[in-house]
Amino acid sequence: MRLPHSHPLDLEHGRIDLSHGAGGRAMAQLIEDLFARELGNEFLAQGDDGARLPACTGPLVMATDAHVVSPLFFPGGDIGCLSVHGTINDVAVMGAQPLYLAASFVLEEGLPLAGLARIVASMAAAARAAGVPVVTGDTKVVERGKADGVFITTTGVGVRLAGIDVSGANARPGDAVLVSGPLGDHGMAIMSVRENLAFDAPIVSDTAALHGLIADLLAAAPDVRVLRDPTRGGLAATLNEIAHQSGVGIVLDEAAIPVRPAVAAACELLGLDPLDIASEGRLIAICPAAGAERALAALRAHPLGTEAVRIGEVIADERRFVQMKTRFGGRRMVDWLAGDALPRIC
Amino acid sequence: MRLPHSHPLDLEHGRIDLSHGAGGRAMAQLIEDLFARELGNEFLAQGDDGARLPACTGPLVMATDAHVVSPLFFPGGDIGCLSVHGTINDVAVMGAQPLYLAASFVLEEGLPLAGLARIVASMAAAARAAGVPVVTGDTKVVERGKADGVFITTTGVGVRLAGIDVSGANARPGDAVLVSGPLGDHGMAIMSVRENLAFDAPIVSDTAALHGLIADLLAAAPDVRVLRDPTRGGLAATLNEIAHQSGVGIVLDEAAIPVRPAVAAACELLGLDPLDIASEGRLIAICPAAGAERALAALRAHPLGTEAVRIGEVIADERRFVQMKTRFGGRRMVDWLAGDALPRIC
Ligand SMILES: Nc1ncnc2c1ncn2[C@@H]1O[C@H](COP(=O)(O)OP(=O)(O)OP(=O)(O)O)[C@@H](O)[C@H]1O
Ligand SMILES: Nc1ncnc2c1ncn2[C@@H]1O[C@H](COP(=O)(O)OP(=O)(O)OP(=O)(O)O)[C@@H](O)[C@H]1O
Ligand SMILES: [Mg+2]
Ligand SMILES: [Mg+2]
Ligand SMILES: [Mg+2]
Ligand SMILES: [Mg+2]
Ligand SMILES: [Mg+2]
Ligand SMILES: [Mg+2]
Repeated sequence: MRLPHSHPLDLEHGRIDLSHGAGGRAMAQLIEDLFARELGNEFLAQGDDGARLPACTGPLVMATDAHVVSPLFFPGGDIGCLSVHGTINDVAVMGAQPLYLAASFVLEEGLPLAGLARIVASMAAAARAAGVPVVTGDTKVVERGKADGVFITTTGVGVRLAGIDVSGANARPGDAVLVSGPLGDHGMAIMSVRENLAFDAPIVSDTAALHGLIADLLAAAPDVRVLRDPTRGGLAATLNEIAHQSGVGIVLDEAAIPVRPAVAAACELLGLDPLDIASEGRLIAICPAAGAERALAALRAHPLGTEAVRIGEVIADERRFVQMKTRFGGRRMVDWLAGDALPRIC
Repeated sequence: MRLPHSHPLDLEHGRIDLSHGAGGRAMAQLIEDLFARELGNEFLAQGDDGARLPACTGPLVMATDAHVVSPLFFPGGDIGCLSVHGTINDVAVMGAQPLYLAASFVLEEGLPLAGLARIVASMAAAARAAGVPVVTGDTKVVERGKADGVFITTTGVGVRLAGIDVSGANARPGDAVLVSGPLGDHGMAIMSVRENLAFDAPIVSDTAALHGLIADLLAAAPDVRVLRDPTRGGLAATLNEIAHQSGVGIVLDEAAIPVRPAVAAACELLGLDPLDIASEGRLIAICPAAGAERALAALRAHPLGTEAVRIGEVIADERRFVQMKTRFGGRRMVDWLAGDALPRIC
């Protein structure tokens, strides 16, 4: 549908105003000349109230995440690619192949169109690289001071891989706990911008789509029992959730947990524990101990898993504690963070 | 997963704080004791990163909408039921049976839990009444002044009904244009609260899930060509979209267009045209003229379509104009609203 618009969108100096969310000509132009142009695919081009998609050949998986990260742009990414990666990852860790994304935008009046265009371009590039198109969307505008630039909710649909049964409830005593790489890069990339921390080299977000890594892992090790992306709350929250769902304990080996020196230093400075800090491109996998080396080899063979390591094991524990063997030979509890050290990191 | 929480949620006097979006214990408690308790179903209970769903038996449809309506509560509904109805309707007007919803929440710090609980209860009741469960969700919190109470994005998935082919691109000259009931109730219900208009009887939103009405219509009249819910931009925007998609003109009969007296009066007072005002529980259907009476009868036989009428016809017109035969025998253009008379009505 090509509409006759009187003025072209001024992507250089223009700003979002309330008419861009009003359901009339201005909104149609914004969708056509910015969103659909960047995200363009055969489904989005249908132009109806939603997307008409092919039939799926297997059980469905559905996941959704709102993204409210601040700042909108950060070292290694922005809210656009983050919102694509985050939802792809939540579908993929369910043992599913991500197929389609929906994206809904809440825009604040006054938002520069140039910034929005960068965000949408980043989203489009991430979706294209992942092979998961944004097939439908929505655009709302709220008055200045009633939002914070842009919020993006993405929802993903995928189809479960045959022969795979992963869930946070499947961990069993004796299983090995693996992680695909260093922890906390994303959260500390955001914090170091916000807190104006200066390092020799900036901390760069790990934001990435993990479905390729997961497909390779599951092909090599179909007996993997749990997959999860350690986002908000970091490794500590993720493992506590799994311990609760599975009714087990987990013991980590502090010396084995990978954290980049710059991330460790920034955490030290801010009084944070790297175990509580979000990653957006890391994978936690729990698998039978006997298959751990095979699984690690598969992870390491993928560009996103070169630094994969084994960091602990699942034990029988009715109290469902997550504990850590410290470098000094002691043990400490790894609890969930009670408060909120890191608001709006995703 | 039953977590050991030290304090119960104070649903009477409590407020949202940043910890409710931090990925730790407070968020888990909010999800468990409010969202999952109200919305509860077998899929949400899985507690993984998304929902594991059955396989679907046909081509998929996917639709998404952010909801930013202000005020959050209005005569006839609230943001909770609205966000369920709106997305169900966008799936249903694609000629599909809505099956599952995802819901993501952006909450403003300081939001009273009592208000949130009412909203979630309303959402749950709407989802239950519609038979379309909320199978997965997300919860983010932003600082006070960075959102406006609650924003809710819902995404729906459904499966296309066999033998049905509806699209905004399918209208043909000679077709009849039908509407399921009076227009503009929803938009004017919101505006009359906002503008403090006092009427003898308040204007009540028409918000409703239309999939039952649509199923009955399509069973009686499978040759229906276009279905659409006239939300933002009202009938005027909806018909202009269809005219553009289909490459046709449309001529409306002003005398036939149903508008309640109170809505007409409020529009008059505010200088608005009822044709630009959103409905959230009305259906526009375009079908071959020969089948129009059968289609109307099917609409009228359903509780949500008792006031269904024929309001116009599709004509050949390369300019794709939507026009109206006025009560006085003249013709006027029905253009899209240029600006934004009604921000944040959904
Ligand atoms: N930000 C966006 N990016 C990509 N596509 C979009 C975006 N916003 C809207 N669209 C697409 O534009 C079309 C019209 O969307 P729109 O939101 O107006 O329809 P609707 O949901 O039926 O109306 P409403 O939101 O008023 O209920 C849809 O096909 C939708 O997928
Ligand atoms: N508001 C909500 N209503 C219903 N269920 C919710 C809500 N918020 C979260 N959930 C559910 O709680 C579980 C955990 O959600 P959470 O958002 O913590 O997971 P995640 O998306 O993997 O993490 P992150 O959002 O940090 O990326 C999921 O099963 C999700 O469906
Ligand atoms: Mg997530
Ligand atoms: Mg996750
Ligand atoms: Mg929409
Ligand atoms: Mg809609
Ligand atoms: Mg619609
Ligand atoms: Mg989430």
